[in-house]
Amino acid sequence: MSAAERERLARVALGRLGEPGDPRLAGLVAELGATVVHDHLVSERDLGGVLSDVAARLSDTDPARDLEQAARLGIRFLTPADAEWPAALDDLTEAAPVQERGGPPLGLWVRGPLRLDECAEAVAVVGSRPATTYGADVASEVAAATGRAGLVVVSGAAFGIDQAAHRGAIAVGARTIAVLACGVDRAYPAAHRDLLHHLGREAAVVSELAPGSAPTRLRFLARNRLIAGLTRGTVVVEAALRSGALNTANWASRLHRHVLGVPGPVTSAPSQGVHQLIRSGAATLVTSGAEVLEVLGHAGEHLVEVPRGEVRSRDRLTLRQQQVLDAVPLASGAAADSIARTAGLGLVEVRSALTRLQGQGLVDRCPGGWRLAGLATG
Amino acid sequence: MSAAERERLARVALGRLGEPGDPRLAGLVAELGATVVHDHLVSERDLGGVLSDVAARLSDTDPARDLEQAARLGIRFLTPADAEWPAALDDLTEAAPVQERGGPPLGLWVRGPLRLDECAEAVAVVGSRPATTYGADVASEVAAATGRAGLVVVSGAAFGIDQAAHRGAIAVGARTIAVLACGVDRAYPAAHRDLLHHLGREAAVVSELAPGSAPTRLRFLARNRLIAGLTRGTVVVEAALRSGALNTANWASRLHRHVLGVPGPVTSAPSQGVHQLIRSGAATLVTSGAEVLEVLGHAGEHLVEVPRGEVRSRDRLTLRQQQVLDAVPLASGAAADSIARTAGLGLVEVRSALTRLQGQGLVDRCPGGWRLAGLATG
Repeated sequence: MSAAERERLARVALGRLGEPGDPRLAGLVAELGATVVHDHLVSERDLGGVLSDVAARLSDTDPARDLEQAARLGIRFLTPADAEWPAALDDLTEAAPVQERGGPPLGLWVRGPLRLDECAEAVAVVGSRPATTYGADVASEVAAATGRAGLVVVSGAAFGIDQAAHRGAIAVGARTIAVLACGVDRAYPAAHRDLLHHLGREAAVVSELAPGSAPTRLRFLARNRLIAGLTRGTVVVEAALRSGALNTANWASRLHRHVLGVPGPVTSAPSQGVHQLIRSGAATLVTSGAEVLEVLGHAGEHLVEVPRGEVRSRDRLTLRQQQVLDAVPLASGAAADSIARTAGLGLVEVRSALTRLQGQGLVDRCPGGWRLAGLATG
Repeated sequence: MSAAERERLARVALGRLGEPGDPRLAGLVAELGATVVHDHLVSERDLGGVLSDVAARLSDTDPARDLEQAARLGIRFLTPADAEWPAALDDLTEAAPVQERGGPPLGLWVRGPLRLDECAEAVAVVGSRPATTYGADVASEVAAATGRAGLVVVSGAAFGIDQAAHRGAIAVGARTIAVLACGVDRAYPAAHRDLLHHLGREAAVVSELAPGSAPTRLRFLARNRLIAGLTRGTVVVEAALRSGALNTANWASRLHRHVLGVPGPVTSAPSQGVHQLIRSGAATLVTSGAEVLEVLGHAGEHLVEVPRGEVRSRDRLTLRQQQVLDAVPLASGAAADSIARTAGLGLVEVRSALTRLQGQGLVDRCPGGWRLAGLATG
């Protein structure tokens, strides 16, 4: 067996026993290599007192069989040695303090044809499970617009915003990845079996947990760092004050990714967390996929025209005509000489302008002289 | 007639002829005094070529009669020489380039018992005329909350957000000021006759335009600088991309006032202008009157507790119990020893914690061992 093969098997074995993101394990593996750590733990059942729990169970693992069974299910295992390894995750190495389980994954289990090394241009679209119709619609729009522009959409597989994001991307034929807090062979939530099946056949389902692993809250929190780490920015569409999406935003921020927030009504609980992110300066407000692209795109790549109001007939006037129009009263009429004084212009000029403005339906004659036509107020 | 009296009359006369905010006139008056400018214009009909239009009509004015007629309507005229003059407006002296009519007013016509010098702690609540129910409700809430805290609410008198702001303040007995783009004796819009009458009897209606003056678009734009200038901050509740409220926000920003924006659905046109203000960094996102107070209040005066989600039963657990709970699977059950491994804790400790968590309804026994109870997911 080659050294590379041994290293891969050691990562499978250690990954099956350690919890995701455990920085003690990740740190030792980064320093010594997985094979050395593995063999040490097997022979000495301890490594300076840490990881004794992992050590105690290590001899029961059979990583070669794990890989074989996974392969039969169409699941591959990636390590940093593989060409397909997403380099973006290396940022996790320096990001996390011990207590937060923020270390880099020992490996990634992947189901689906999408190659992760082709996903360097990715955006996370995340949010609450109890999303509103509004939130789901916006999430779909953002995913569709960014997906159409070539970005890979990354999310979880939960109800609400996660689901809406995948559906928005799928609807326009864009690439999309679901990152799970359980094995990629499991359907959680069960109602998303079809969605996950579709992604596993057409796109990618990813997890650092070995096939068969069950989801726990802790694993969800660890999973969030992968969603943030795999992408150039995280868009939070709706997130109540305790939503896990805020945890993802927090990881994105710590990993120096962009954090973007879609606002909503201030009376809507699922928008409160997003508003707090924007208000505190942690997130940039975005209102559309186009604005997300502008923030995430390379300089000058996705320039969004600043939205402006529709062009009105007022805009097509000459400067003089505008000056006259601005001086015409809104309600009761004024005589031309009074308008001329208000505008600071000559009477002849003003009379001629008023006639043209009348022709364009912007002013009306009335008993007192002239006044603005109904629709000309701005 | 005293010099002060002559100065006052000169300001009335010049104010009646010049357009609001004309910085040429304001600049000359600031430099030479209104009496000198007035007399110069009367005798020489010109001042170095400028203001010839004002000069031509000056002899037709009768400022003493203007003041007399105004007084009969319960309207007083304030100049910077009066104790009641709102000192905040002095900031306008340095704020505005010539072409934008941003000079300080020559005087203010005021109807109503509220003294303007007692309004140093004021907040502007502005927004679109075509407001949504959502926007109107939020404007009322913001006005009520800030008004209840002692701030004077300042707005225009238009339909939509302006009206909602006044109503919100009135409903809690708070002080409120309407600043008009026409004479304070006029009701514009006519449908707000009752509202303006109420404000003129109980609060204050203010304008720099002499009684009888008609509103024009130009006067609305000039009026906006007074709303911004009179207040410590401007809250924009709803503003479409071309809304005049954005002009007020712009003045607030130029006058170094706070600019605050209330977000709404990204699909709502009346929120687009606000979102752009927040997105560009020109406005701070706020979601309630309490948050407005926090921004506008003196340091430490109106500290809002950062909104947090409700306290959940999870929060009342010991750290150990939380660790165990976090390791319990969400869907299928896990045996206690598997949970112990996931949590990295001893089996005896985990068994005891599981029993207590079950007692609190957070975990359930199931065929596979233990799983989270329905409502414990977070």
